[in-house]
Amino acid sequence: MYSFEPYTGRPIRLDLLVHKGETSMDAPTPATALTSVELEQLDAYWRAANYLSVGQIYLFDNPLLKQPLDRAHIKPRLLGHWGTTPGLNFIYAHMNRAIRAHDLDMIFITGPGHGGPAVVANTYLEGSYSELYPNITRDEAGLRQLFRQFSFPGGIPSHAAPETPGSINEGGELGYSLLHAYGAVFDNPDLIACCVIGDGEAETGALATSWHSNKFLDPRGDGAVLPVLHLNGYKIANPAFLARIPRHELESLLTGYGYRPIFVEGDEPSDMHQKMAAAVDQALAEIRGIQRRARDGGETTRPTWPMIVLDSPKGWTGPKEVDGKKTEDYWRSHQVPFGDLDNPAHVRLLDDWMRSYRPEELFDAGGALKPELAALAPTGERRMGANPHANGGKLLRDLRLPDFRDYRVELDAPGSVVSETTRTLGAYLRDVVRDNPDNFRLFGPDETHSNRLSAVFEVTDRTWVAERYPYDDHLAADGRVMEILSEHACEGWLEGYLLSGRHGLFSCYEAFIHIIGSMFNQHAKWLKVCNEIPWRVPVASLNILLTSHVWRQDHNGFSHQDPGFIDHVVNKKADVIRVYLPPDANTLLVVADKCLRSRNLVNVIVAGKQPEQQWLDMDAAVTHAGVGVGIWDWACNDQGGEPDIVLAAAGDVPTMEMLAAIDLLRTLVPDLKIRFINVVDLMTLQPAEEHPHGLPDEEFDLLFTTDKPILFGYHGYPWLIHRLTYRRTNHDNLHVRGYKEEGTTTTPFDMVVLNELDRFHLVIDVARRVPKLQAQAAHLQQQMLDKLGAHTQYIHAHGEDMPEIRDWKWAR
Amino acid sequence: MYSFEPYTGRPIRLDLLVHKGETSMDAPTPATALTSVELEQLDAYWRAANYLSVGQIYLFDNPLLKQPLDRAHIKPRLLGHWGTTPGLNFIYAHMNRAIRAHDLDMIFITGPGHGGPAVVANTYLEGSYSELYPNITRDEAGLRQLFRQFSFPGGIPSHAAPETPGSINEGGELGYSLLHAYGAVFDNPDLIACCVIGDGEAETGALATSWHSNKFLDPRGDGAVLPVLHLNGYKIANPAFLARIPRHELESLLTGYGYRPIFVEGDEPSDMHQKMAAAVDQALAEIRGIQRRARDGGETTRPTWPMIVLDSPKGWTGPKEVDGKKTEDYWRSHQVPFGDLDNPAHVRLLDDWMRSYRPEELFDAGGALKPELAALAPTGERRMGANPHANGGKLLRDLRLPDFRDYRVELDAPGSVVSETTRTLGAYLRDVVRDNPDNFRLFGPDETHSNRLSAVFEVTDRTWVAERYPYDDHLAADGRVMEILSEHACEGWLEGYLLSGRHGLFSCYEAFIHIIGSMFNQHAKWLKVCNEIPWRVPVASLNILLTSHVWRQDHNGFSHQDPGFIDHVVNKKADVIRVYLPPDANTLLVVADKCLRSRNLVNVIVAGKQPEQQWLDMDAAVTHAGVGVGIWDWACNDQGGEPDIVLAAAGDVPTMEMLAAIDLLRTLVPDLKIRFINVVDLMTLQPAEEHPHGLPDEEFDLLFTTDKPILFGYHGYPWLIHRLTYRRTNHDNLHVRGYKEEGTTTTPFDMVVLNELDRFHLVIDVARRVPKLQAQAAHLQQQMLDKLGAHTQYIHAHGEDMPEIRDWKWAR
Repeated sequence: MYSFEPYTGRPIRLDLLVHKGETSMDAPTPATALTSVELEQLDAYWRAANYLSVGQIYLFDNPLLKQPLDRAHIKPRLLGHWGTTPGLNFIYAHMNRAIRAHDLDMIFITGPGHGGPAVVANTYLEGSYSELYPNITRDEAGLRQLFRQFSFPGGIPSHAAPETPGSINEGGELGYSLLHAYGAVFDNPDLIACCVIGDGEAETGALATSWHSNKFLDPRGDGAVLPVLHLNGYKIANPAFLARIPRHELESLLTGYGYRPIFVEGDEPSDMHQKMAAAVDQALAEIRGIQRRARDGGETTRPTWPMIVLDSPKGWTGPKEVDGKKTEDYWRSHQVPFGDLDNPAHVRLLDDWMRSYRPEELFDAGGALKPELAALAPTGERRMGANPHANGGKLLRDLRLPDFRDYRVELDAPGSVVSETTRTLGAYLRDVVRDNPDNFRLFGPDETHSNRLSAVFEVTDRTWVAERYPYDDHLAADGRVMEILSEHACEGWLEGYLLSGRHGLFSCYEAFIHIIGSMFNQHAKWLKVCNEIPWRVPVASLNILLTSHVWRQDHNGFSHQDPGFIDHVVNKKADVIRVYLPPDANTLLVVADKCLRSRNLVNVIVAGKQPEQQWLDMDAAVTHAGVGVGIWDWACNDQGGEPDIVLAAAGDVPTMEMLAAIDLLRTLVPDLKIRFINVVDLMTLQPAEEHPHGLPDEEFDLLFTTDKPILFGYHGYPWLIHRLTYRRTNHDNLHVRGYKEEGTTTTPFDMVVLNELDRFHLVIDVARRVPKLQAQAAHLQQQMLDKLGAHTQYIHAHGEDMPEIRDWKWAR
Repeated sequence: MYSFEPYTGRPIRLDLLVHKGETSMDAPTPATALTSVELEQLDAYWRAANYLSVGQIYLFDNPLLKQPLDRAHIKPRLLGHWGTTPGLNFIYAHMNRAIRAHDLDMIFITGPGHGGPAVVANTYLEGSYSELYPNITRDEAGLRQLFRQFSFPGGIPSHAAPETPGSINEGGELGYSLLHAYGAVFDNPDLIACCVIGDGEAETGALATSWHSNKFLDPRGDGAVLPVLHLNGYKIANPAFLARIPRHELESLLTGYGYRPIFVEGDEPSDMHQKMAAAVDQALAEIRGIQRRARDGGETTRPTWPMIVLDSPKGWTGPKEVDGKKTEDYWRSHQVPFGDLDNPAHVRLLDDWMRSYRPEELFDAGGALKPELAALAPTGERRMGANPHANGGKLLRDLRLPDFRDYRVELDAPGSVVSETTRTLGAYLRDVVRDNPDNFRLFGPDETHSNRLSAVFEVTDRTWVAERYPYDDHLAADGRVMEILSEHACEGWLEGYLLSGRHGLFSCYEAFIHIIGSMFNQHAKWLKVCNEIPWRVPVASLNILLTSHVWRQDHNGFSHQDPGFIDHVVNKKADVIRVYLPPDANTLLVVADKCLRSRNLVNVIVAGKQPEQQWLDMDAAVTHAGVGVGIWDWACNDQGGEPDIVLAAAGDVPTMEMLAAIDLLRTLVPDLKIRFINVVDLMTLQPAEEHPHGLPDEEFDLLFTTDKPILFGYHGYPWLIHRLTYRRTNHDNLHVRGYKEEGTTTTPFDMVVLNELDRFHLVIDVARRVPKLQAQAAHLQQQMLDKLGAHTQYIHAHGEDMPEIRDWKWAR
């Protein structure tokens, strides 16, 4: 019924490294032959990791199999994933050997989904696990605990996660491993990231483009990535297509991506160990050669980096068949290869399987790994579970930040100066780049210039290691601005860069940041969990600047108009998210400084790039952004009394329209008492018990009153403001105007008209809501409708806004 | 100062099709030589399209340049994109030739960003534009109007959009062209989709993996895609990296993707025309050969499809330099190549540029295209702007739907049967697949089986055209289930399939649907605009089934727990979005039937896949899902009176917990009057004026009362319920429990405990909120806390839920 073939060491063959596939590659350099002792030990180490992996999935007790396996020793609920695990264990063991042999500074990125058992097993074997989790001791009791906690309530998940030592990549949502690997090695010239890519993961879009990261890797100043494409052939219930194309086609693909693939193929363990050892040594020799030629020899062309393709069976060394069905080397070994342990035959199968690793040769009676095997692991911070690059906060240095006040826009009065808000930030970022040449980068999809941050090109270039022409504009291998038309790559590189202890900022068109909505989710979840893990040292925040925003897509139109990312962000834990809507340049400077100093957050900043009126001088901006919300006295006329209405705005365009409406109202109905509030920090609107930045109710009530009508102009979808404030005393009197999914290619002012957020609609709203304007409301409304009619007529004739609207300035 | 070199026809050379690059490809088959007349006419047609493109970007008047160009003839605000346009015009003209020469059924997919001027120009030239927009006549007045409307208020955007005849791909957010192209040709054996891919777009993740769609294309039953990679070298401000790798590397990449690339490289127009004509004919011959061998010859291996790489200058035929700066063949020609038309030299430059196309040779005095050129376009539905496949509603056939009642779960009483809800749907979908063999497909990232829809494999297979092994499980070239580990590919293929007039359903893990959040945005925006365009015939809805949802990620944990896609969806226009949370199998059947019959919507269905109690028999389910919200009488004890509290639930797990809480309450406090409401159609909660499914206020108030406490158990983030109901009378009494971003690898019941949505917390909530329970509240709370304590203790000891909780059944 069962055809499990026990695992046996095989005689060592030295005729290795014959390319089995149809590859046309040059023969590799002579193989490294492992001695028979080396091979035996390496294989034993791998068996130990496999044993611990199976134990995690299945065992509740009897971790050393000192007794015959019994149903009671097995977990009641079997959860976890075996399929990818033996391959990961194999690679990890070989990287350990290479680290020791070549004194490497290496981290391990576990791309395949659900590789948790492998990484946990290996960090346990090397000792880093027990250092971080002292309750998981390196003895029989610790083994029992190690097995029990896996996929168990209060325990650990089945994939590489923040809880996993040495990990900077979550193995849940797939596709980002190679981006994280590249992100980690930028500006880390001595670091190598061994990045295992599952052949399932390799089907994702993000992974498919991330191979091209090699066009952005400077062999002088950056480290190296050693990709290991793990071709085990199957996903959950399907083959992986890269395993089902001719080998020459796969080789062509990887060559086309700019790599030199080394194929390691087979299933016979000792043969595979020799091939893998040789392949790893060869790849490392090539990496060192590339780095030497670039660093000493001045070689400047893009190198062809090596990579490894490991073609080994899914569920390798597991049961070949279960209940007569093919299991090893098939998708049936993806998760738990067999359940129903109430079936005694299944218990025997498990017992046979686990004993095939010969645990008695691996662990002493007390449960400790035998010393000759323990000696195979690297030591101290060379252990991949203890490498500080994978716990980046340990290496984090504060940025050297210039005084943001030095970049201020000088104002005589609110509205007296018109400038491009993000351009001011560009000058500040230029000096941040200049002063932090090795630990700060800017990321964006080809939009740094479009987003008005071009001052940075006074001191740096765009990163570019592909071919260059003499007339190219600011391209250099060591440029600090990473531009690629892939939001996934920008986000993934930045995440890797941050998680390995550096700083950065991602600037993006607002609408298209949704492309990485899911990556944001995963990073925010990662940070939330890190906050609960004492040994994870805080890292620099993920700073996202959204400009080219919904209101100013003059020549792009409806597809480019989407302010919903903020809604997406605020679903995540309040501890880890911040949203800022600075209305002008000086406020943006204060916010940027705050974000660049912060830790373990995702900061989303929405700011305009088009010429716009500037409102606050630097002192006012510091105060305003410090609190995050405040009354702008100069725009109010309710001083010393109660307002008739509270007008509020968040976002640059709503702020301008609201002020223009106030300007109209103060002319048309001068006795109307108006209070104007601007909101920079959106999270101040939430109750204090919901968000650390939330205003206490009494302060909120002082600002927004408990009974006056409130009209709120908001940058995004209006219901978010309701969602944030529905518990506030005066919520019933709150009316919000915002983007309501109406837009097209039109003029800037027409965009606000289409969404009824313009000054004229706002005046109508006020007239309707303030009791004392009741008598005048109809007349005011007609005046405003006339103006709207004139606007529409004008733009259709001239294609641009009426000068009186376009050039309106606050001048009170 | 200006070095614009006027465009001139060059002598025809017949020594064509020499591969300039470093390609190692076989020499192509003998070139098609255009005769000198053919070449001259083709070139004239191209010039006409280029002329119309420049005119759209710049001209306000004087469309035929009958007068010397003057500032007043030029638009005040210059918007639009030139760079990609001449290349698109070139390809379109050549496809027209091929359609006529070979009587092709072809659609044109415009991948490059902002290719609007080209597609508009070409559909105008072929006449399809004026048929759909009769005000844009084919004369001087129409030309003036055509130019004016472009990027003008009330006009059209700068990229291919729903407004563009012949388009099924929005040129705003990039990356989906090739997926849409493949989606359109599935089950359309005679159709060819010519898909132009920008080299900027090619950097995106979605595009990078979409090349692999050829592993899913059946040469017998599907049509063909002819990808044209347009290598014009630059994005907004940067080179494109595919243009900056050695040509042999690019060839290797495309070969590795499984294509045979044909390179067309150069900038000399007549030379390029000959090369392109030959390349197109060659590619078409290869396509026909592949199809013939598969269809007549029984060839079953995956073919190597041809593709074209067009390497031509960005801004081809535009000004070579502007103000001394390189412009043609550089990123400076990306948008408007030069502005500042107050500078008379710029006006002259524009005049020279436009006259270089020799408009007087192209249009007659009245502004009509000369007849010998007009004759070059295909006619009728062969015109790519009039091909019905690109206005899929025209071809849409209703699905043959079996009676969903036949698949019902039979119930004696609520809770009397436990089954897997999505498995019931699987049986229904099986018969939908069986009865609609050529216009219905299922899509999903390798999860059809995991999501319990496996019954479909009784009648079909997974689509697979890559290598197959004898032991493979349900793989076939003509399978109706498309599985690839790329949510982007699933979504993009389905969009293409729907927009070309077919039907489908995408099933996905709930958390990872965020990966295509941005694609959903764009599709929803597309539908919203289509609803405003009379000639766009409605297409089948995009149906998304979210299962493996947040509450049942037992072995996956926190990274797999995210119910926020619903929040994202409801930001879009109410006209185009629907969200359903069927609590059991019979309700799911009703909902699925409704969704599959609907048009121009995005339907999101969230349903469980784990064994769960079934509540409604089919009659009850039909009534309940028909209204979308309703009182479940059998769970209430407020009959004939007023309730003390309204308990409500949306989603399968909250429904179960709420019913379990009711069960507890009716034992503990039998005189408490409880009303239970279940919500299937989330949009019923919104006011009727906000959503067409919204309940009128009086009906809502009848259900939820105007003054009793409401406790609402919701599947997702609780604030969404507040957002939907904040205008309802009784909103102040509403308390919502839902997912609050607390989760890990744990038991199913512990997941609801962590988020305080479990029966015990719900009882505590009720006790706190109902005045008449005040005296008992502390005691009830203590009882519940004791139960929670026992639960926690139990799961940490046993790893699974207590039997009394796990096996609880409704039995009243």
